[in-house]
Amino acid sequence: MIDRRVFLSGMGIAGLETLLPRHLSSTALQSANRAAHMSNAPGMRGIRLMEDCLEIDGRKTFLISGEMHYFRAPKADWRRRMELFKEASGNCIATYIPWAVHEPQPGKFLFESGDGVHDFESFLGAAGAAGLLVLVRPGPFVGSELIHGGIPDWLIKGHPELLARTIDDKHLGDTVSYVHPIYLENVTRWFRQVCPIIARHTVQQGGPVAMMQLDNELTGLHLWRGSLDYNRESMGIGKSGGRYPDFLRGRYDGVASLNDAYGAHFESFETATPISPDRCKCLADLRRAKDYFEFYLGTVQEYARILAGLARENGIGVPFCHNAGEPNMSPLFLETLRSQGKDFLLGTDSYYNLGQDRPDNPTAPASVDIFCSMEMLRIMGYPPMVFELQGGSPYNWPPIQAGDCAAWYRMHLAYGMKGSNYYVFSGGPNPPRLGQTSDDYDYGAAIGGGGEIRPLYGAQKEFGTFLMDNEWLAEAEREADFHVALDFDLPRSLRYWKYNGEQLFSNPSAWEFLRKGLLTSSFCAALSPAFCDLGSDAWLGDGQMPLVVIGSSCMATAKQERIVRFLENKGSALITPTLPAYDEIFKPSTILSDFLGNPMVRNQQREVVRIDIAGAHNITSNGAVFTTTKLPAGAEVLGVDEFSGDVIAWQLTTKGGGKAIFLGMSWSHGRIEHQQLVSTLLARLGAQSKITCTNPAVWTSLRTKGNRSVLFLMNLFSQPADADVTCQPKSRNATVKLGRVHLEPMTVKCIEV
Amino acid sequence: MIDRRVFLSGMGIAGLETLLPRHLSSTALQSANRAAHMSNAPGMRGIRLMEDCLEIDGRKTFLISGEMHYFRAPKADWRRRMELFKEASGNCIATYIPWAVHEPQPGKFLFESGDGVHDFESFLGAAGAAGLLVLVRPGPFVGSELIHGGIPDWLIKGHPELLARTIDDKHLGDTVSYVHPIYLENVTRWFRQVCPIIARHTVQQGGPVAMMQLDNELTGLHLWRGSLDYNRESMGIGKSGGRYPDFLRGRYDGVASLNDAYGAHFESFETATPISPDRCKCLADLRRAKDYFEFYLGTVQEYARILAGLARENGIGVPFCHNAGEPNMSPLFLETLRSQGKDFLLGTDSYYNLGQDRPDNPTAPASVDIFCSMEMLRIMGYPPMVFELQGGSPYNWPPIQAGDCAAWYRMHLAYGMKGSNYYVFSGGPNPPRLGQTSDDYDYGAAIGGGGEIRPLYGAQKEFGTFLMDNEWLAEAEREADFHVALDFDLPRSLRYWKYNGEQLFSNPSAWEFLRKGLLTSSFCAALSPAFCDLGSDAWLGDGQMPLVVIGSSCMATAKQERIVRFLENKGSALITPTLPAYDEIFKPSTILSDFLGNPMVRNQQREVVRIDIAGAHNITSNGAVFTTTKLPAGAEVLGVDEFSGDVIAWQLTTKGGGKAIFLGMSWSHGRIEHQQLVSTLLARLGAQSKITCTNPAVWTSLRTKGNRSVLFLMNLFSQPADADVTCQPKSRNATVKLGRVHLEPMTVKCIEV
Repeated sequence: MIDRRVFLSGMGIAGLETLLPRHLSSTALQSANRAAHMSNAPGMRGIRLMEDCLEIDGRKTFLISGEMHYFRAPKADWRRRMELFKEASGNCIATYIPWAVHEPQPGKFLFESGDGVHDFESFLGAAGAAGLLVLVRPGPFVGSELIHGGIPDWLIKGHPELLARTIDDKHLGDTVSYVHPIYLENVTRWFRQVCPIIARHTVQQGGPVAMMQLDNELTGLHLWRGSLDYNRESMGIGKSGGRYPDFLRGRYDGVASLNDAYGAHFESFETATPISPDRCKCLADLRRAKDYFEFYLGTVQEYARILAGLARENGIGVPFCHNAGEPNMSPLFLETLRSQGKDFLLGTDSYYNLGQDRPDNPTAPASVDIFCSMEMLRIMGYPPMVFELQGGSPYNWPPIQAGDCAAWYRMHLAYGMKGSNYYVFSGGPNPPRLGQTSDDYDYGAAIGGGGEIRPLYGAQKEFGTFLMDNEWLAEAEREADFHVALDFDLPRSLRYWKYNGEQLFSNPSAWEFLRKGLLTSSFCAALSPAFCDLGSDAWLGDGQMPLVVIGSSCMATAKQERIVRFLENKGSALITPTLPAYDEIFKPSTILSDFLGNPMVRNQQREVVRIDIAGAHNITSNGAVFTTTKLPAGAEVLGVDEFSGDVIAWQLTTKGGGKAIFLGMSWSHGRIEHQQLVSTLLARLGAQSKITCTNPAVWTSLRTKGNRSVLFLMNLFSQPADADVTCQPKSRNATVKLGRVHLEPMTVKCIEV
Repeated sequence: MIDRRVFLSGMGIAGLETLLPRHLSSTALQSANRAAHMSNAPGMRGIRLMEDCLEIDGRKTFLISGEMHYFRAPKADWRRRMELFKEASGNCIATYIPWAVHEPQPGKFLFESGDGVHDFESFLGAAGAAGLLVLVRPGPFVGSELIHGGIPDWLIKGHPELLARTIDDKHLGDTVSYVHPIYLENVTRWFRQVCPIIARHTVQQGGPVAMMQLDNELTGLHLWRGSLDYNRESMGIGKSGGRYPDFLRGRYDGVASLNDAYGAHFESFETATPISPDRCKCLADLRRAKDYFEFYLGTVQEYARILAGLARENGIGVPFCHNAGEPNMSPLFLETLRSQGKDFLLGTDSYYNLGQDRPDNPTAPASVDIFCSMEMLRIMGYPPMVFELQGGSPYNWPPIQAGDCAAWYRMHLAYGMKGSNYYVFSGGPNPPRLGQTSDDYDYGAAIGGGGEIRPLYGAQKEFGTFLMDNEWLAEAEREADFHVALDFDLPRSLRYWKYNGEQLFSNPSAWEFLRKGLLTSSFCAALSPAFCDLGSDAWLGDGQMPLVVIGSSCMATAKQERIVRFLENKGSALITPTLPAYDEIFKPSTILSDFLGNPMVRNQQREVVRIDIAGAHNITSNGAVFTTTKLPAGAEVLGVDEFSGDVIAWQLTTKGGGKAIFLGMSWSHGRIEHQQLVSTLLARLGAQSKITCTNPAVWTSLRTKGNRSVLFLMNLFSQPADADVTCQPKSRNATVKLGRVHLEPMTVKCIEV
């Protein structure tokens, strides 16, 4: 496994350390360090973070949590609902603690009125009595379909200056600017009230609270409204001593160097301004937009660090966690992770549907995203967690159905989920005038607003029972046939990179090609990829495993060098669809191309490209195509365009005995030829599937621990599917023949092999 | 039913008549008129177009056609495949006749080589012998995953000047500019060769050819590449006597009037230029973009008229047809229909999936689009036809499954499809070097490239058998509970309207609200809407039927007046979410608002709106909201925002005894409250569902002819569904209780009631 400290090398992030406000930093960081190991003692009650799974109350097992809001569920029904969740194999309850509920007027805190809405201490008591752990989520922002996401209305209305802003200085809805001084002042007051109460109930104090989440879906509130935060006051744009000029000063030697990088004419760092991603017209613009994006993420890590410091200062000794708002958002927290230390757990949220604009049910494309999500968390060094796993929807159209959820849950397990929290397990009425959608936050949950038990409860119970019957799966890992070198710059680029110059294969295009092309074709071919972090050396020793490199036009120097080292060390790599020409700050960099003998590769606009490659014919590119107009010395041509005769693919033995295949095409998986292409090229590099499956619509995942293996077979379509299946788990010497397997629509079968 | 001549009134289209090239017009139109009634004699062999269905060989029945390409299917297997299709109740075969196949070199026509690739006369003979009619589709553009869509490579390569252009004068891929003189010259030569051959085999000559399609998916090749055609030569932009200045001259009194309308300073019509829809910043810009869009559609109708004229000149006496490329594209042909006369049949293409960017299977949102498509064709006066009904895919991922197709077919029938053509029924090898995707155009069709019979054949046979067993359904109509006044300007606006000013509820927003809001809520409530054409008077007499008006900010004067007349005549209407403030050319126009007593209605940006309306609570708007700040005299408040107290809905008895409800909110259907809202308000206007269905995820359609009715029950989800169902068909006096009905995943049940 990967050392968590290593994976950030090569990220090229600078200057973030300078961002913490001085009055908070020393105490907060000391508290953080002091508390860091409190919950990490082996064998104790609570949650301990291991590399590949969690240890819960001393036992390596799955976290099975269900969200249940004390401020929504009737107090008299708390215990019954908790017992129901225990019956479904649950071991943890999660709850938001909404600021707006507990500070209804400035400075007037309300925790102890007898009603359930305010009395979360009794709720913690009930959970403890039921033998459940608790994950607390006190915000400050919680979302949860509450007005202002649970931030008090008096604060938002009274201080519009703390709202986030677009680059054109317009409000970004009612979202806050994380590091605005007035916001932070109020946040500090909130945490100083709520944290000591939580602290009385942590596992160290014999209570049930085993983990605390810092804020909620950080960055999501801004990004989902289409913008970063450009609040001039909190970001300090144009301000002497402001965060933005300080960041620029940390990154550039002087203003001349800044102007050189941006193609601009600023007189000082203080007069420098960001550029909107929508308005980038050249690489210099893109550099400027990327800088601001990284600066913004720096303020997010600063905010998270302030929250962590406040919590530790106020007695919280349990691990922290955070939920990336979408499967592809976890890489936005690389900066944050670096400053949070070891007692921090990053997970994601996972919903297949939240309204009409998304597919009605779990689909194959959604499953590719979940694979990426689980794998990204794994290579960051985390046992993959889903802190919000679909357990209903704020909408009741489209309907969230129990059978679809059952498939969704098992699909996550197939791809490596080691813990989850149903959002929500139990619904109920909203606190008066705080709900956004309705007085009743029923959510279509397993336990409805009125306490009724829904079919979804059956699906969750069935899944929980399966997990407890197969607790060993918490330590099982996926058997992989090849590595995909994941460049975290690709998913991160989705949030700032709108520019596409001539000849440029952009990072967002590369991310799309990875998902819709390479991975989808691999799954159809029953090949099992695993990610490895292109920003880390940890996987370099594993020379056995063939590597796929998704080559965008811009790749960090250190990452190019790492691929070179892999090849020099007898590694085998498929590089597709292009070779980098620039580094991570968009300066010319051709390290990888130089190593491969400087082939001339150029982007071709063609109506039709049909490639004949290593025995596979008629492979259509429906994406970007790069022809090689000058082959490197010693290269063997593998594939040509059947129409033009242009060279599209070649193979080379590199210095040091490596084997490199270059394939100059991207594609969106659309035809069986694409899966033949991937199988053929990977077989040339020594990869062979451990699984055979005659139906490309049945996707597979083989998970093994020691001498036990489970094969997951997924039918993510609305029709039944049949397939002849075999597999060769590490745990067996022979091929296991499963014969013909039948799968009902939208189901995932788990077969121990 | 609607008189086909009427529905264009109020379209505001001017100057199109002037566009036909003089050398073609007189002969072509005379031929067209002469031939128009040739195929229209009752009882004769062939296809006769009726108002509500087709008459085929003298019998009112369904057109059941299957696409089978002679240039792909092996000649030796033609007859067997045709017999298979007849066994599946087919009565027609359709085929493209690709220009590139038959004119491989300029002027060298190849029709009679012995191989099947060129010998379409033998193919027609085989179809005739099998007793099947034939729908011929000789282009000139055919698409069909052929290179250049079947236009000869020598023409495209030899004359790049005939390619379509973006507003920035870049090529729009390899697509042609329809009215470019060199293109039309070559098209004329092609039609003069191919039409006389076809003419020898029409039904009038005792052959099987019963219909001919003009070109293919007109406008799609441009619009799907994101642009209209701005080829300066064919469009005559900046050219004296050019089409564009002539169009402008026909529309504006003089250049001063043009400049006034566009907020521009052109010196003459000849120097006027269009504006890109992406760059519109005010209503004057929008007016200029809309003018160009209508001008472009005028050139499309000119092209279609030239093709029709050429065909008639060259002996084709059968009806013409055309396939709009997408369900929402049929309104782009209003200009074309006006010039084609009565012997012309407009239909659409219908695919639920053509690759990874679309849902894997038929879904509820797709079903709303199909409803709109069928209803739009019906109110244009056509029996709704689907000239390409999904019968596979050029991709084999995602898989197109027989069960999903079976649901897709029956869903179309539920919404009124009266004839269809499976694209494709039979696959086969591409002609050498003409295929875009692969040498094998298998298409996953019912009959595969190698002649194999697939499960999809079973689904088509089952559907065909059902249609023949229930031929009376061809004359059945949907039982509707209320009318939706369809403004064709809404779906048309999708192609040119990117601008959204303050306070403006745009036509594209209105179209989205219609689909995702009003219709989806109605279907969940088991209410049955029917469209009526807001551009026609035909439905005005039907005062019984409550009317829903989707009010955008811009509505043609004639359409506003028509709503007023409806209300003056004791009509009942729900108007939502806003009242028009401008007419169709974006000049102030408040006829409807004036009639309603001039309420003050303004767009509110609110974080939360929760409406309490006529007994239904907590109705959330997740779209635009319009509050009424000054109520009309005599209005009764129906609904207020629970948070602000603002008036959102009111009811008024109008002059002449009409009943008007104004509801100032749009929504995307997301909660049960939305269906309660629609039910409540429509009930106030006298509409009541003839169907009750306890499961909102089971959608319904009741079709009746005389004393026979079929109730369609649709489960478009991947899980089974149950519902308690009753209905009251016109054909019965009593309520029919169906009890609890069970539906398998993704199935449509047809129950005769």
